[in-house]
Amino acid sequence: MKKAVFFDIDDTILDTSTFAKSARKSAIRMMVDNGLPISFDEAYSLLKEIIGQKGSNYDKHFDVLTKTVLGEKNSMLIALGMITYHNVKFALLRPFPKTMDILIYLKSKGYRLAVISNGLTIKQWEKLVRLNLHNFFDKVITSEEVGFEKPNKYIFDEALKRMGCGAENSIMIGNRLDTDCMGAINAGMSSILVNSNISPEKIQKIKDDNLDIKIINNISELDKLL
Amino acid sequence: MKKAVFFDIDDTILDTSTFAKSARKSAIRMMVDNGLPISFDEAYSLLKEIIGQKGSNYDKHFDVLTKTVLGEKNSMLIALGMITYHNVKFALLRPFPKTMDILIYLKSKGYRLAVISNGLTIKQWEKLVRLNLHNFFDKVITSEEVGFEKPNKYIFDEALKRMGCGAENSIMIGNRLDTDCMGAINAGMSSILVNSNISPEKIQKIKDDNLDIKIINNISELDKLL
Repeated sequence: MKKAVFFDIDDTILDTSTFAKSARKSAIRMMVDNGLPISFDEAYSLLKEIIGQKGSNYDKHFDVLTKTVLGEKNSMLIALGMITYHNVKFALLRPFPKTMDILIYLKSKGYRLAVISNGLTIKQWEKLVRLNLHNFFDKVITSEEVGFEKPNKYIFDEALKRMGCGAENSIMIGNRLDTDCMGAINAGMSSILVNSNISPEKIQKIKDDNLDIKIINNISELDKLL
Repeated sequence: MKKAVFFDIDDTILDTSTFAKSARKSAIRMMVDNGLPISFDEAYSLLKEIIGQKGSNYDKHFDVLTKTVLGEKNSMLIALGMITYHNVKFALLRPFPKTMDILIYLKSKGYRLAVISNGLTIKQWEKLVRLNLHNFFDKVITSEEVGFEKPNKYIFDEALKRMGCGAENSIMIGNRLDTDCMGAINAGMSSILVNSNISPEKIQKIKDDNLDIKIINNISELDKLL
């Protein structure tokens, strides 16, 4: 059977960290300009703290922010923050360079494609749909659905089951050595690490441990390996 | 003390019903075009039925739709539907003609303005913010916050309390005789009905009952009364 290629989404296909940071800063600027009575730097630090505590998929960061600063929720400031965040995020949303070329190349080689992501199912589909990449992927398997996050073996097992393919025929591509690659390896798959800035010591460790993890700069180089 | 003017939002300031209908139709078209295996007409009827059952503020109409048609949720179709719905809604979102002129006129006359709405607080602020009307309104009082919907007297009492003004100095403007106007009258306020297509019989009944409800075509005519 032809191999299946599984992708992480955030910071693998999309530069999520960069656009989320820009969107959050714009939202904070808007809230401060419209009366949140602390400085931009204070408000942005506080938001980062709240995201650290609640996780990035929590949907009430700005509620907590206004409540913390003002003692009660301020719905106008929350609405301003949310709208600005979403407008900037959607304006900046784009895949890494050559992503579309690589996905077309992989389909032309007969690979089946899917996503394995620690995130919310509809939010992850939304990113693919907004970029018009959704038709490339047969399945999106998320931690929300499966109940376990990468690197837990179970999310990889479940993804393999849903795609009807064996671990030995499957490759996981992601930007996190600890979650994407080690999780895949533990599930019996091979793996390719991208966008990682991995240290020479860790590269040596992968060699010493004889792990089936290849390292490239970003997914535009996948055609060298697949 | 200067009078306070309270507005309903949906179908009073914004043509909500029209843009929601267009947005829902576009979303259904997108879902059917991308594989929802029923006709447009069937899918749109089913969506209307689901909205009737769950209410328009329920946020999982498309989840229920895919589950009903397919036996299980389809997250890609839900994402396509949601994105299309929101894109079309925001593209069409605009106030009724001359709304901005009328709001400026009312402020120039010294009126204080607020909203009383059966809806979700942040969603209602979001509409005002997207239209850049938010700075006109001192407060947005919603049924979500207060726990009672118009025409319940309590939501009007609470709005008057938050604005610090007496019922005798306050006017409610809305498109629904039963909820906006009768609720306001019961709370001791006066009222103006807009966008209503009210029947001659009902107009006669208002006269017979000597209710303090004036009727105009739309809010562009408010300067004749205030």
